[in-house]
Amino acid sequence: MPEPLTIWTYDWVPGGEGGPRGYVRDVRLRWACEEAGLDYAVRSVPFDDRGPAHLARQPFGQIPFLEDDGIVIFESGAALLHLAGKSEVLMPRDRRGAAETLQWIVAALNSMEMVSVPWWFIGLSGKADNPLEGWMISRLEHLETVLAARDWLAADRFTAADLLMADVLRVPKVRRFGNVPALAAYVERVCSRPAFAKARDDQVAYFAAADARRESAN
Amino acid sequence: MPEPLTIWTYDWVPGGEGGPRGYVRDVRLRWACEEAGLDYAVRSVPFDDRGPAHLARQPFGQIPFLEDDGIVIFESGAALLHLAGKSEVLMPRDRRGAAETLQWIVAALNSMEMVSVPWWFIGLSGKADNPLEGWMISRLEHLETVLAARDWLAADRFTAADLLMADVLRVPKVRRFGNVPALAAYVERVCSRPAFAKARDDQVAYFAAADARRESAN
Repeated sequence: MPEPLTIWTYDWVPGGEGGPRGYVRDVRLRWACEEAGLDYAVRSVPFDDRGPAHLARQPFGQIPFLEDDGIVIFESGAALLHLAGKSEVLMPRDRRGAAETLQWIVAALNSMEMVSVPWWFIGLSGKADNPLEGWMISRLEHLETVLAARDWLAADRFTAADLLMADVLRVPKVRRFGNVPALAAYVERVCSRPAFAKARDDQVAYFAAADARRESAN
Repeated sequence: MPEPLTIWTYDWVPGGEGGPRGYVRDVRLRWACEEAGLDYAVRSVPFDDRGPAHLARQPFGQIPFLEDDGIVIFESGAALLHLAGKSEVLMPRDRRGAAETLQWIVAALNSMEMVSVPWWFIGLSGKADNPLEGWMISRLEHLETVLAARDWLAADRFTAADLLMADVLRVPKVRRFGNVPALAAYVERVCSRPAFAKARDDQVAYFAAADARRESAN
């Protein structure tokens, strides 16, 4: 019998207002497994010490990575596509629906997140001028046009593309950015799914439990 | 009989030193078709006027997009994965080799290009301080460690992951960045493939031919 799917994340991340809990990217994979009804376990690598064993499985020292019956896949987008291959819930099986889902998954990674994450990162410095501001506005406006005309990105129904795009857009600073009402309604719609709440709440609880372990170790 | 594959690009882009010719992302798809021996045609949308017909097929107003027997796929990374489904040359068919190729394709899009493109874009302003400099160095150093230990990213042989990663890294400002000898040798190795030269030279010739058309129209 094959091992169940295992989602690897950090053993702990900082808590508190504005902290990463609820946003760490293992949420994407937990959420996908919840939507698809796939059994999974969650295991962790040390947050404080990202050593050779971690780098051998994730060469950029990040998480998550997914273990599936002896195979390890890093990059949350790649792991999501791998999971999509296991369930029609995540990706339709007809050529057109599959192609639409694939293109919007990559759009979330390489057209939206490629701008929003560096924009967000530069914004942490608190400086008034963000050199990526215009690019960010342009990408959100293009996406607003798409979402003003339909509820879901691909195949006229929820797919893994919505899961990923909503996860990119729900980051507070992105979500509250500018006048993009269709985009805001879209994020609400996708994130109101019970599978999202389960995935996020489980992640928050996982890291909260680690607080107690760290305290008793000190 | 199905229509042949069609790669859509702009009808013209600016020439000259430091210009985009030879780098426009339709190269990725031309290159993949050349490697895999897939027949393809190249068609174009206006560079100067990106209207509704273009946005309907590429909602961010970019190129390339790929047409395959009635299906249109935008995002070069998605189109590359679609092509990889047609040829073992681009992606091995065994589980492990396919997963490795997939993860490195997404790594090129979402770990490397997500940093290198905004870093490059900010650098165009000519200001001395680039807020993404440290992140860029970190990503290249992680990749250097990987490439110091092996010739190809996935499955111990050339795959579409190398095609894409090399295309991300061959951009002059990225290629000449820092002390990353294994990475530099890797880009040389991947870009010495005849299929790359054919794809790039064909693209350069395509845009050069458009110069004459534009001149005669003026």
